Amino acid sequence: MGWAIALHGGAGDIPRSMPPERREPREAALRHCLQIGVDAIKAGRSPLDVVELVVRELEDNPHFNAGKGSVLTSNGTVEMEACIMDGNTKKCGAVSGISTVKNAISVARLVMEKTPHIYLGFDGAEAFAREQNYSVPRVLYCSSKLLRASSWLIPPREYWGMETVDSSHFITPENIERLKQAKAANRVQIDYTQPIPKAEEETSLPNGDSQIGTVGCVVVDGYGNLAAATSTGEAIIRATVARDVAALMEYKGLSLKDAATYVIEECTPERTAGLIAVSATGEVTMPFNTVGMFRACATEDGDSEVAIWHDEPCD
Amino acid sequence: MGWAIALHGGAGDIPRSMPPERREPREAALRHCLQIGVDAIKAGRSPLDVVELVVRELEDNPHFNAGKGSVLTSNGTVEMEACIMDGNTKKCGAVSGISTVKNAISVARLVMEKTPHIYLGFDGAEAFAREQNYSVPRVLYCSSKLLRASSWLIPPREYWGMETVDSSHFITPENIERLKQAKAANRVQIDYTQPIPKAEEETSLPNGDSQIGTVGCVVVDGYGNLAAATSTGEAIIRATVARDVAALMEYKGLSLKDAATYVIEECTPERTAGLIAVSATGEVTMPFNTVGMFRACATEDGDSEVAIWHDEPCD
Repeated sequence: MGWAIALHGGAGDIPRSMPPERREPREAALRHCLQIGVDAIKAGRSPLDVVELVVRELEDNPHFNAGKGSVLTSNGTVEMEACIMDGNTKKCGAVSGISTVKNAISVARLVMEKTPHIYLGFDGAEAFAREQNYSVPRVLYCSSKLLRASSWLIPPREYWGMETVDSSHFITPENIERLKQAKAANRVQIDYTQPIPKAEEETSLPNGDSQIGTVGCVVVDGYGNLAAATSTGEAIIRATVARDVAALMEYKGLSLKDAATYVIEECTPERTAGLIAVSATGEVTMPFNTVGMFRACATEDGDSEVAIWHDEPCD
Repeated sequence: MGWAIALHGGAGDIPRSMPPERREPREAALRHCLQIGVDAIKAGRSPLDVVELVVRELEDNPHFNAGKGSVLTSNGTVEMEACIMDGNTKKCGAVSGISTVKNAISVARLVMEKTPHIYLGFDGAEAFAREQNYSVPRVLYCSSKLLRASSWLIPPREYWGMETVDSSHFITPENIERLKQAKAANRVQIDYTQPIPKAEEETSLPNGDSQIGTVGCVVVDGYGNLAAATSTGEAIIRATVARDVAALMEYKGLSLKDAATYVIEECTPERTAGLIAVSATGEVTMPFNTVGMFRACATEDGDSEVAIWHDEPCD
């Protein structure tokens, strides 16, 4: 028994030859998010608090497909999704079509906690977020951000804020470029599978550093309480991979690692899927069948990993 | 081996004392939808065609919570959902926030077939539906409706049409009344759990004929090809009941009936859930832990049932 945390920022054909100026900020972001999560767990925050906090950081980071940095719609706008689930109560909340709330994951959590619904979408979700907007005095909000950035103390949840922003906040130059290329190629863009062009020697794969999926975090505390938060991944929904891992453990007696590996190797098409998972007893596993997956994990036992490719943790 | 079909129009606290004027049109609708489905199977239509066709009928019927007859939002409008899945390819399509397309299930199918997406919502889904709108000459459309109504011949899918209507089409006097009552009681209405008031002697339950969930249909053909279509059920999503039934069969070797019964009796809270299920070999089961469930099924072996309560098929 012990706590465990795992988080990811998308999987895909991420070439090992990825240039340092693209690799390093992502590694730093994974490290930062992991630190925030571990600090929060050690401070006794609930798994729900921890996964929300970590996904907020991933949403705020422009290098991942969630929040700021979200892949654009064909109209050049953002329509963000998020969902969160509590293992104990099996309560969950989800939103789609968020366009002006900075952290969609926090709206999803309030849908779970403050409504009889599971899902709110678009105008209804935006209106709900505004109704729930708790105003945090600016000085407290700024200091709470500083505290969080310092990885020293996690402020009480009421100081996290439910910021609304102009929708331009979410739009990065990289994603405007991706959309241009997708349109030029008459392709629909679901995630970062549309690469940014690079000099030929920088990539060993035809797809460049294309990246599927979004972001996510799972946490278990020392008492076996679980929570999960994600910004959704289109195709992977069909495979109900998380349910399958749980079913293999429950009905076939497999270990977390064996169950997760089986699902990624046998139940999902090659080069399409990655999975982060923790068990009630504090194990963690992060299998994937793509070239790479931006990921990080830590356990109470002292194991800790930040990695992108197979068998090659970051320094 | 053989084909099988099951469909439902919601479960819940449906009192056996339900007056005939409320019971009979629902029984007739279930019978009609079953007939349409069976005719389509016998005519060699694909399971996907059959489930789409049956759910279109359920959507068009004002007595069920889908399409015409959908529960209203707090603003008195409709925001409809639908999803469809093909067992062979595991492809699926889903929509939410549909407000002017007559049959949301047909939009969901086109999302599955014509886009790289799984889900479209609100304005984007409506715009997509309009782009896909295949115009059917009025005379052909009308004759195809007549043919369908006669249960004699199912017209080719291209004559089903993708009708758009004024959003008032979906709003029934009963649901305006339900919304009024919900607002008066300061309650949020998710489905038909807000009863229409009735004379006291007509109901044996405090909740009247409140009804949870929406509509759905599952079909397997004689070759083991499966398809499912539904208009979503809020709370039941959390339980991943269909995945659980499949996992119990796959990983524990349970029969369809035992797996479905286990899930309804052991894995879902009492008085909250019902399930329609068919197996690849043509078995069918429809367990529920509520007072009743509007349901119908048939198999190639000649079994056929239209029923509302436990152990009491309709005449």
